[in-house]
Amino acid sequence: MIQITLIGSGNVAQHLLLAFNKNPDIEVVQVFSRKLESVSHLISIDKITDRFDDLAEADIYIIAVTDDAIVEVSSQLPFKNRLVVHTSGSASMENLNDNNRKGVFYPLQTFTKGKEVDFKTIPICIESQFNDDYNILKKVADSISDKVFMINSEQRKSLHVSAVFVNNFVNHLYAIGNAICDENQVPFEILQPLIKETADKIMSLSPNEAQTGPAKRNDKTTIESHLNFLSDENHKNIYKLLTQSIQDNGKKL
Amino acid sequence: MIQITLIGSGNVAQHLLLAFNKNPDIEVVQVFSRKLESVSHLISIDKITDRFDDLAEADIYIIAVTDDAIVEVSSQLPFKNRLVVHTSGSASMENLNDNNRKGVFYPLQTFTKGKEVDFKTIPICIESQFNDDYNILKKVADSISDKVFMINSEQRKSLHVSAVFVNNFVNHLYAIGNAICDENQVPFEILQPLIKETADKIMSLSPNEAQTGPAKRNDKTTIESHLNFLSDENHKNIYKLLTQSIQDNGKKL
Repeated sequence: MIQITLIGSGNVAQHLLLAFNKNPDIEVVQVFSRKLESVSHLISIDKITDRFDDLAEADIYIIAVTDDAIVEVSSQLPFKNRLVVHTSGSASMENLNDNNRKGVFYPLQTFTKGKEVDFKTIPICIESQFNDDYNILKKVADSISDKVFMINSEQRKSLHVSAVFVNNFVNHLYAIGNAICDENQVPFEILQPLIKETADKIMSLSPNEAQTGPAKRNDKTTIESHLNFLSDENHKNIYKLLTQSIQDNGKKL
Repeated sequence: MIQITLIGSGNVAQHLLLAFNKNPDIEVVQVFSRKLESVSHLISIDKITDRFDDLAEADIYIIAVTDDAIVEVSSQLPFKNRLVVHTSGSASMENLNDNNRKGVFYPLQTFTKGKEVDFKTIPICIESQFNDDYNILKKVADSISDKVFMINSEQRKSLHVSAVFVNNFVNHLYAIGNAICDENQVPFEILQPLIKETADKIMSLSPNEAQTGPAKRNDKTTIESHLNFLSDENHKNIYKLLTQSIQDNGKKL
């Protein structure tokens, strides 16, 4: 039985708590939360604290707070030489305070409040300062996910940047598609099967193989007609830059 | 029984042929194909022709060729006053020759050679010059898809532009994510569950509601650190433009 203390009560903390609760090999002994009500539906109230001095002994302390707060929170822990990890994609492991043994436990997924996810399919990227700690983190990660990867801080940073492209930026392109549909009184739902298929396609093809469209086939007439159609200057600029990028990328392949 | 002649033998023609073949209410009486072997696995050889003069009588002639060829092909049909439709997202219905009754039968999906799709879930956008023809097209569309929409040429154009954003451009962002992973010896598959969830999310939330990330929360430290991390100038430019666009969009909401 591995004993875990969770520090934080946001989206990631809550989803981890849900996953750990289902696992007989893991016991969440305590949750540090400034707001009782954020986690009181997921763990008994006597296990919730908002005082660092009250933190009990555990095998792992998982800090699931905003990136900015990691340095501060890890420096306030009133003990030494225990295993303390954060869950951030972009913060270095070195942001953690030197008083304790450091590690990272980064589940790479977008968590929506209230929408349960299947943790088995979520990749967990782990890293540790010491080999023995790696084995503990691996055990915990394996117990909730089928996809566990050893990823160092530099690699994790590249993943985080990539995730901005394939998640945040992709979602913004959905928003632009939605806006164009709205302007023309067309239901956005018509595009949903295409969106789904576009994502599905790269499970079996590489994105370069899956690329189609007027930019890829250098169909100047269609590109010109799309640019004329777009009334929003910002949409036009994005259209031009991404079209150019697809064409330059095609030349490199 | 509705009798259909398909003109063309590319991806769209083949996928339509597959869908029609499964449907007892529709008979594909002929396929016009310059290459016998493109469709000979889908229909008996005596029903394939490469001469316009050999085209038999049918209720609908579906021209599934490249946008550029629609004007030319429709002008070569050796008959008058029959129902002739094209399958293009971007070409106007008016591109069809005046000799015949015009219409559009546009299945909005990305078709991959050899990968069968479930036509039931593919939106079909139909348009016609005459009301009676609309009813025939609707009957055919309903028989292969659960999602049939009446969409005029202007609306269809907006859909086609949106589709470039949510399909072609989104796929290109996947390609950039993949390139960043490759540069850092990180397996791209780690990002696949995130990509899938990003697409799934907007089936229940609007893209604006689903937006997350450093741009959205104006996290300048992370944005700066990502820009420093990116070595490719083109990736940097795309990162900047899309970050700015997310922030401007946030102000409008």
